[in-house]
Amino acid sequence: MSAIFHIHQTHSQAGHFKEALEYLKLEDSCQADGIHLFPELFFTGYPLLDLVLQKSFYTEYQRYLELLNDWAISLPENSKKLYLVGGLAYDFDANQLPFKVENVIYALYPGKKLKKVYTKQLLPNYDIFDEQKYFSKGHHPCILKYDDFHFGLLICEDMWHSSHHHVDPVIQLQEETHKQNVHLDAIINLSASPFFLSKQKKRLSRASEISTAFDCPFIYVNQVGLEDEVLFDGQSFVLDQEQTLLQAKSFSKDFFTYELQKRDKPTPRPLNEKVSNTWEDLFKAGLDTSKKPAQILSLNDSDCQILIDALGYALQDYADKCGFSKFSVALSGGLDSALVLAIAKLSLKKDQYLEAIFMPGFFTSSQSYELSQKMSQKIQVPFFNLPIKFFHSTVRQAFTSSFKQEMVGLTDENIQSRLRGALLYARSNQINSMVLNTSNKSEIAVGYSTLYGDSVGALSLLGDLYKTEVIQLCHYINKKYGELIPEQIITRAPTAELREGQTDEESLPPYDVLDAILEGLLSYRYSVEDLKASGFDPDIVKQIFGLHQRSEYKRYQFCPIVKLKAKSFGFGYRVPITKKNIFN
Amino acid sequence: MSAIFHIHQTHSQAGHFKEALEYLKLEDSCQADGIHLFPELFFTGYPLLDLVLQKSFYTEYQRYLELLNDWAISLPENSKKLYLVGGLAYDFDANQLPFKVENVIYALYPGKKLKKVYTKQLLPNYDIFDEQKYFSKGHHPCILKYDDFHFGLLICEDMWHSSHHHVDPVIQLQEETHKQNVHLDAIINLSASPFFLSKQKKRLSRASEISTAFDCPFIYVNQVGLEDEVLFDGQSFVLDQEQTLLQAKSFSKDFFTYELQKRDKPTPRPLNEKVSNTWEDLFKAGLDTSKKPAQILSLNDSDCQILIDALGYALQDYADKCGFSKFSVALSGGLDSALVLAIAKLSLKKDQYLEAIFMPGFFTSSQSYELSQKMSQKIQVPFFNLPIKFFHSTVRQAFTSSFKQEMVGLTDENIQSRLRGALLYARSNQINSMVLNTSNKSEIAVGYSTLYGDSVGALSLLGDLYKTEVIQLCHYINKKYGELIPEQIITRAPTAELREGQTDEESLPPYDVLDAILEGLLSYRYSVEDLKASGFDPDIVKQIFGLHQRSEYKRYQFCPIVKLKAKSFGFGYRVPITKKNIFN
Repeated sequence: MSAIFHIHQTHSQAGHFKEALEYLKLEDSCQADGIHLFPELFFTGYPLLDLVLQKSFYTEYQRYLELLNDWAISLPENSKKLYLVGGLAYDFDANQLPFKVENVIYALYPGKKLKKVYTKQLLPNYDIFDEQKYFSKGHHPCILKYDDFHFGLLICEDMWHSSHHHVDPVIQLQEETHKQNVHLDAIINLSASPFFLSKQKKRLSRASEISTAFDCPFIYVNQVGLEDEVLFDGQSFVLDQEQTLLQAKSFSKDFFTYELQKRDKPTPRPLNEKVSNTWEDLFKAGLDTSKKPAQILSLNDSDCQILIDALGYALQDYADKCGFSKFSVALSGGLDSALVLAIAKLSLKKDQYLEAIFMPGFFTSSQSYELSQKMSQKIQVPFFNLPIKFFHSTVRQAFTSSFKQEMVGLTDENIQSRLRGALLYARSNQINSMVLNTSNKSEIAVGYSTLYGDSVGALSLLGDLYKTEVIQLCHYINKKYGELIPEQIITRAPTAELREGQTDEESLPPYDVLDAILEGLLSYRYSVEDLKASGFDPDIVKQIFGLHQRSEYKRYQFCPIVKLKAKSFGFGYRVPITKKNIFN
Repeated sequence: MSAIFHIHQTHSQAGHFKEALEYLKLEDSCQADGIHLFPELFFTGYPLLDLVLQKSFYTEYQRYLELLNDWAISLPENSKKLYLVGGLAYDFDANQLPFKVENVIYALYPGKKLKKVYTKQLLPNYDIFDEQKYFSKGHHPCILKYDDFHFGLLICEDMWHSSHHHVDPVIQLQEETHKQNVHLDAIINLSASPFFLSKQKKRLSRASEISTAFDCPFIYVNQVGLEDEVLFDGQSFVLDQEQTLLQAKSFSKDFFTYELQKRDKPTPRPLNEKVSNTWEDLFKAGLDTSKKPAQILSLNDSDCQILIDALGYALQDYADKCGFSKFSVALSGGLDSALVLAIAKLSLKKDQYLEAIFMPGFFTSSQSYELSQKMSQKIQVPFFNLPIKFFHSTVRQAFTSSFKQEMVGLTDENIQSRLRGALLYARSNQINSMVLNTSNKSEIAVGYSTLYGDSVGALSLLGDLYKTEVIQLCHYINKKYGELIPEQIITRAPTAELREGQTDEESLPPYDVLDAILEGLLSYRYSVEDLKASGFDPDIVKQIFGLHQRSEYKRYQFCPIVKLKAKSFGFGYRVPITKKNIFN
């Protein structure tokens, strides 16, 4: 005896009710007999943030939920179909105001009314997640009976145990099977699970534990899409014990079918609880503090490939959702902007336009010009040369005349960066192009950038990648796709070229040291003492901590950064600007 | 028989352990006999956000907690003192990583070890609050015995009931008094309660309900300070039934003493639950939809005064915490920048410096120059004239030559604003001044501003005030402080002066209509239908909703906005940029 599953790895956008309904009604893959699975909150999109509470949103949602219900009722009762769809369930009070909102699974049985079968129990409320702000949690496990099959239902976080959650929905399912005296034939997890590097390995590992414990396959359905900073990678899968049977594409809508055979004699065993991904995970020491300095920042080829895929997809999805088909990148002759341009080029679609704007100043070397032009030519991207020297000198004169004070030092450096920001955005206005930010995580972490200058952009692609990782990605791209980025761009000493003979290493420690310290500070929340103990120069550590502490105001006004790591800047990392300096 | 209370309305800063300890040890007011009360999280500062989880933070905190403990032990055991201090209680796991964090009240009895007596039970997790992200809640009421007195302890949110909280700590206290067969002699609430207009009225009203129910005084201790967008107003009070006995200053550290007399025969009565301030409050209809158009935006004199005090204090506290003693304001001849300049001037301290920068372009009228200069002279603020015409024309030429395309329309408008932003920040770099943002809530709500242009700044003073409120504040300031703002600045038609003959009302509906619609959309989450039903032109409503929807990306990169209302932009209002337009 078998059951057919149709796994719909769909694209998500907050508020896309109409598209979701059309998908269900019109998509060929939705018409087949069998059990159709969709991601968590498929019908509303996820994350929604305050939209959940906006009347325009929930009124429209309720209207579409009615239409979904009508559609379910309209299906011939004898058709062998079942749709399990993630959505919201609102309870309204006497004034028609939402009183309770749940993140649920609706079952659509042909010819019947929509039925809420399960409510998410574990509402993540750490890092980028704030589900407890909006949702009320469920309290009951769900074993769904279908013919002679029994399926355990979970939503995303429910599969992860943690001492910070008061219940464990997986254990609960086990207890429920005992109570009902049944075996599960599959566990189904509908998810909206954000990407970060190595996340899929964690998911597979945890799913394997659960599959082994229940002795049944684990079916995992994830969405794809970028919602501001949060990127969903898809990679839906079916796994049995140790073996991944099927896996959908990453960063792409996808669909596959899986035929489940009923096991003769399933032999469940105790759950081996060894993986967790919640609160305490954010503290787990990952840096090997016995090495001096800690070495943590090495990406292998498959990491590089998935990062490039992730960024290209993120860029395209943002552009699509915000209505852009043109992209502008300020090319400096350095490797951050070169990498952004290369990624944009690799992701570019036929009807799209990408351009490079080079804005040399007094301190820009001719090498920067040559390398930028060479790269643009190589990858066939229009190259515009827009010198800022004249603007710069007229601003200098005006300052001397208006304020009776010459522009020197930082003032003279930053104005160049800000003039470039203004010009780049004028170009963006002129052709309605999306400006791609080119800052990396190392710079953002220590404030080595100019607010409203090189920090501008609609979306930051590299804001979750350290400089050392940017270098590795450049090398990988050249290896994989031919020399898109002139080798000299990668090998020359990094410099902002804002004053004579400037290099990054004048102001900052070498990037391999800086990045290791930053990873300790940001991802592992290490203290100065910890980093000292693992062999870093305490003065350098203090300098970095101080720079980080004082640059919070720049990060506050930063554009969305595509999240690529477990710990990233953005909503998942919020620290008061006005705090006391506790690193002294 | 009486008990003496010392109410310490202290200033807060995240991580100020050292200052907090010094305050306790050295401040004269802390040495008197009696019960000393301090705000919620007095010892750590509040809000802390991710600092709670940073090792540098909690290691340093634990060290100071030890010092606090040492100090308590060192006090002579026979001294008649008790200190009730808000702080954090960490539980650490085997790896010395924080496992549980509680928001608690410590009691310091002289000669004894620090004692955790109460844990906050209601952790707010709506609007700007995300305490459930960081803290674990308490489960028990606390009746503190002191001589023959019994005091009920609460922390901030605990005094507010809501159907969204699963317990009601006030009811719990009532039950506990029955169980212990005692009467409470006072209720003590240690708070860190953010300001918004009319908040104090709500606090007093709710405290009065509780005081009446227990037939005992209610003692409320609040902190002062600005932490990024969140402003704390102080206004600590002692209230008995309907009567406010004592009230501390707003927006200032303060201290007062209260002598509590034991009541002979207290007569508790049932609690009259009529006020709430939590989740569902965010939905409560406030606009009178029977009027056309809704009239909601009228500030009385006392509102105006507290807003001016709030903003002056916010500005000064931000400057103090971030190390600024100079301020730069871009004066345009319009009323937003004039109001910002006036507020800054009113708050200015002796050793501080405030300047106005006027940056006329091709479309700036001579009237704008005259009015700006007049105002600066009147209030004795240095006035700098820095024309952007020449920069503008050179950029125009460069664009024509580099891109073979003339700057026209929006491109030509925005570049002026961005050049001003760049120049203003160059000046800020030159003298290390704090740039005060001049955008108002109406502009921010509909994106009627230029990103990286007039939207720049370290702190936004007017970002929570609609244009109609800005006008009222200008009138009030002139009435109260003499004509600081030339009357014509207030009465002339608002214009961005970015093209010939431009006025705001060309692009937007009249501000009284716009602001009423925006208040409906933002504070009451009304739908287009609701606003139509209350008499607004549906086309205008749709236009406004559309503008709001499409300008999310500008708000994402906006600077901190001082929170003045129940519903403000910033962390308490988060909506995805990439969402679907559901207002079509």
